[in-house]
Amino acid sequence: MVVKVYGPAYGSSKRVIACLIEKEIEYEVVNIDLFKGENKTQEYLKLQPFGVLPVIQDGDFTLYESRAIMRYYAEKYKSQGTDLYGKTMEEKGLIDQWVEVEAHNFQPPLYDLVVQLLFASKLGVTPDQNRIKEDEEKLARVLDVYEERLSKSKYLVGDSFSLADLSHLPFTQYLASGLGKEYMIRDRKHVSEWWDAISNRPSWRKVLQLYPAPV
Amino acid sequence: MVVKVYGPAYGSSKRVIACLIEKEIEYEVVNIDLFKGENKTQEYLKLQPFGVLPVIQDGDFTLYESRAIMRYYAEKYKSQGTDLYGKTMEEKGLIDQWVEVEAHNFQPPLYDLVVQLLFASKLGVTPDQNRIKEDEEKLARVLDVYEERLSKSKYLVGDSFSLADLSHLPFTQYLASGLGKEYMIRDRKHVSEWWDAISNRPSWRKVLQLYPAPV
Repeated sequence: MVVKVYGPAYGSSKRVIACLIEKEIEYEVVNIDLFKGENKTQEYLKLQPFGVLPVIQDGDFTLYESRAIMRYYAEKYKSQGTDLYGKTMEEKGLIDQWVEVEAHNFQPPLYDLVVQLLFASKLGVTPDQNRIKEDEEKLARVLDVYEERLSKSKYLVGDSFSLADLSHLPFTQYLASGLGKEYMIRDRKHVSEWWDAISNRPSWRKVLQLYPAPV
Repeated sequence: MVVKVYGPAYGSSKRVIACLIEKEIEYEVVNIDLFKGENKTQEYLKLQPFGVLPVIQDGDFTLYESRAIMRYYAEKYKSQGTDLYGKTMEEKGLIDQWVEVEAHNFQPPLYDLVVQLLFASKLGVTPDQNRIKEDEEKLARVLDVYEERLSKSKYLVGDSFSLADLSHLPFTQYLASGLGKEYMIRDRKHVSEWWDAISNRPSWRKVLQLYPAPV
């Protein structure tokens, strides 16, 4: 069964597609344009009642929330493609921990920077300079913890690439290229080496090549 | 090995403790007073470098982020106590989905209401009436989706209590009692029945009895 992924142009959907490529799972995409409100149609809301991306359909199974989708495929196809979910229960627990850190500590200030600096004009928002400064300070403190963590192992959990790292790809990509803030990565030796390692994976190069960002 | 849980007075730690009780896992608590900054000591930051609650120690294994901790114990002790993580991979995927919805759609406006209405004076914050109104509107829209979902099954995923429901306990408790907004639950028939079912579980009654909220 080919997995259908909605909204490949956007960050959270790219998290899902990178996972499917790593797991060697066949998929196809359905474009959704958030700026045209295609996520608010009756048809879309039947699949994802909160009107956000992504959602997948796999036969008659529908699942949303990118981090739930990647967990599902990483576990269901454990022995196919890259093993992304740890060798022991404890490694798996730590991978889940860093996926949560990505969601609750890392992404919120970075997402707001993306909205303020990249999407503002398209959304009719005036960038708020105080807020941008605050977001950057918050993100810097988070990245200092990452620097310390990554001084001890090549990846966030041990010496293998996992969902913990993969989950960071889409929004760190904005930090590395679109936002003009690559120094936040490059000023931190271990974060910088980690970013080079994860962003040069063939799966991520393919995602970037196939699905350009909407702005 | 007895699991050590830090900060039992606070919402996210209660998520962990309710899970441990459901799984019949022995634990002990270590009090942490956020209002005294006990989460910012060098000693605490060694366990949880972002300075937030909760964190657990289980022998020499340390894990943080409440939703990662509950996943770890629900899976590690799958056949002990209440089975909280689904009968099939697809049920597990949907449970993860609703845990994510709780984290990203449900908790943010509710957490902000708790800060604005309950913790404001202790934090030296002046409650912002526009923000309170906005939070309530957002939460109402989210609860409308829950009402629809819960009209189709007793719990968020099928007919068994799972991590999907458990994850909602701590902050829905504030909505039901501390905030004076119980009508947001009671005005929705299925949400109301669901809340009665999950909040009357012996595990949750025990958590409330043993660990009073800090305000």
